[in-house]
Amino acid sequence: MFKTVEWKNSSVVMIDQRLLPGAEVYRKYTDYKGVARAIKDMVVRGAPAIGVAAAMGVALGASKIKAKDFKAFKKEFAKVAGLLASTRPTAVNLFWAIERMSRVAAENKGLPIPELKKRLVEEAKEIHRDDIEINRRIGRHGGRLLKSPSTVLTHCNAGALATAGYGTALGVIRGAIEAGKKIKVFADETRPFLQGSRLTAWELKKDKIDVTLITDSMAGYMMKKGLIDAVVVGADRIAANGDVANKIGTYSVALLAREHKIPFYVAAPLSTIDLKIKHGDNIPIEERDSSEVTHIRGKRIAPQGVKVRNPAFDVTPNPLVTAIITERGVVRRPYIKGLKGLFRKG
Amino acid sequence: MFKTVEWKNSSVVMIDQRLLPGAEVYRKYTDYKGVARAIKDMVVRGAPAIGVAAAMGVALGASKIKAKDFKAFKKEFAKVAGLLASTRPTAVNLFWAIERMSRVAAENKGLPIPELKKRLVEEAKEIHRDDIEINRRIGRHGGRLLKSPSTVLTHCNAGALATAGYGTALGVIRGAIEAGKKIKVFADETRPFLQGSRLTAWELKKDKIDVTLITDSMAGYMMKKGLIDAVVVGADRIAANGDVANKIGTYSVALLAREHKIPFYVAAPLSTIDLKIKHGDNIPIEERDSSEVTHIRGKRIAPQGVKVRNPAFDVTPNPLVTAIITERGVVRRPYIKGLKGLFRKG
Repeated sequence: MFKTVEWKNSSVVMIDQRLLPGAEVYRKYTDYKGVARAIKDMVVRGAPAIGVAAAMGVALGASKIKAKDFKAFKKEFAKVAGLLASTRPTAVNLFWAIERMSRVAAENKGLPIPELKKRLVEEAKEIHRDDIEINRRIGRHGGRLLKSPSTVLTHCNAGALATAGYGTALGVIRGAIEAGKKIKVFADETRPFLQGSRLTAWELKKDKIDVTLITDSMAGYMMKKGLIDAVVVGADRIAANGDVANKIGTYSVALLAREHKIPFYVAAPLSTIDLKIKHGDNIPIEERDSSEVTHIRGKRIAPQGVKVRNPAFDVTPNPLVTAIITERGVVRRPYIKGLKGLFRKG
Repeated sequence: MFKTVEWKNSSVVMIDQRLLPGAEVYRKYTDYKGVARAIKDMVVRGAPAIGVAAAMGVALGASKIKAKDFKAFKKEFAKVAGLLASTRPTAVNLFWAIERMSRVAAENKGLPIPELKKRLVEEAKEIHRDDIEINRRIGRHGGRLLKSPSTVLTHCNAGALATAGYGTALGVIRGAIEAGKKIKVFADETRPFLQGSRLTAWELKKDKIDVTLITDSMAGYMMKKGLIDAVVVGADRIAANGDVANKIGTYSVALLAREHKIPFYVAAPLSTIDLKIKHGDNIPIEERDSSEVTHIRGKRIAPQGVKVRNPAFDVTPNPLVTAIITERGVVRRPYIKGLKGLFRKG
């Protein structure tokens, strides 16, 4: 099986997701600026995977800091953290991971610098290990919600490629299958970046999970024909009220699901929940380069100079969300209470 | 300006829409089998344009029939009509045009065969001329429904390229602009065949109409941001109850429009209305080759061997349709009465 992101011999190794499914290429980063560029350019994507990559980027940057005391170290550390935090605005896991690394640095300021650097590398590795374990828990909780047999629609890729491994939305599907349920999957191709056709179809096929690829525009048709029993998606940021920012197009899928009385589940770790943001309208939405819409695999598909909008995410209002599946259990309406409660469980 | 389909020197000339916007290539067909293949392979597409192309294909096939009497002619004519009718199942304009040509043949069976052949060519040319005039009327009726200034979302291409010229949905936009209104357009790219990015964006830019390209998955985001004032689409077949078969993804757009209280207009000629079909569920929906989903411009974007669904159309239930704009005026609910009434006006 592939590894999405890995700490290996003092470097960060990531599968280049831009080249999938055509080629399985691993890129090695020995410099935090390279990791930042890789996040920005979507070598790695998916909220939890971005978090892990950012933590490793921080560890990598920290390990190269030439400083004799904590004060000097801290100044350089802030530059590293700042650059990594500037890569992508929507997925909150990025900021969560950088904050966790910063906290560990602050808490261990008494250590000799070489020890502190080791401690930060250990923390990044722990974030990586934790993420896989968290996904398995999401999978167990969420797997119970799916009927057997059933067909699940997913949008974008919230799989092993979007996390340290196993996946959130695809973790729920894997959890159900591991519990002995018969699950088939419909994958939206997810324009413009095609995470569904390039990544979800690829990793599910690798896992021998029954997957059928459709364009985003076909989800409504499939629901109307009674072919979809549930929708499961991941999330890039969940507001305190349960509004969910996720890959562009998720909102349409949620609306279609409600129209067809199909449950719409969101699977995400606690690190995706941002209690500081009250309402989905306040979640910053990244707008990416127009070439993602006008070109596919380097080929132009639209006229020269055409105006383009390219928001990478949308917000699904909480009334459309049947349940949010986390590593600490399943939360339903009212989300304000339920989501807050999760953080007290620990 | 370009010509979508044209009768020229005893042949049918069509712009190859598969190559747009990269190249403007005109193909010449001197054989009805070539025209049938061109319709099937989507050299020409769009319900009214398919109707015109089929009529010209019939005229072309008929003109080559070696028969001395009407009985022998009729037998060969049936083969020509049969092949052209087998090309695509959903757009009813195809069958409408072939029936009109067959009726003209039957009504003129007393003519000498060479005269009959000329008569059929004249009828095909008249269908072509009529279509442009019909679209201009649709544009005048529909243009009145749009506010100024306003931004209109359209899906697929129901423009000059989908008709003999001017367009149905884009005809409404052109009609509004000709009436002095300020109209901007958002165009869904319309996967899998990309009629929006390749064709709608191209012809609107040629016409200097303000167009912004988005992926199909972004329509909901734009509506939620208040950027869309109305939706106008074409149709491939309208059932007697007002259910509308149109390009896959239209249903999602209609549902989003209702959620955001945005009017959803369908623009189509009477030849698209099929009173023999009571309900949209009875409209045959074409399923096309999986390579349209797995490849773009010859490049593979999905893993080898992945299962695919590729329905080319979906049905929008009539409660989601604010009004149907035809050459004989605008029809609103209840559609059963209103649509039937159109055919009595003539």
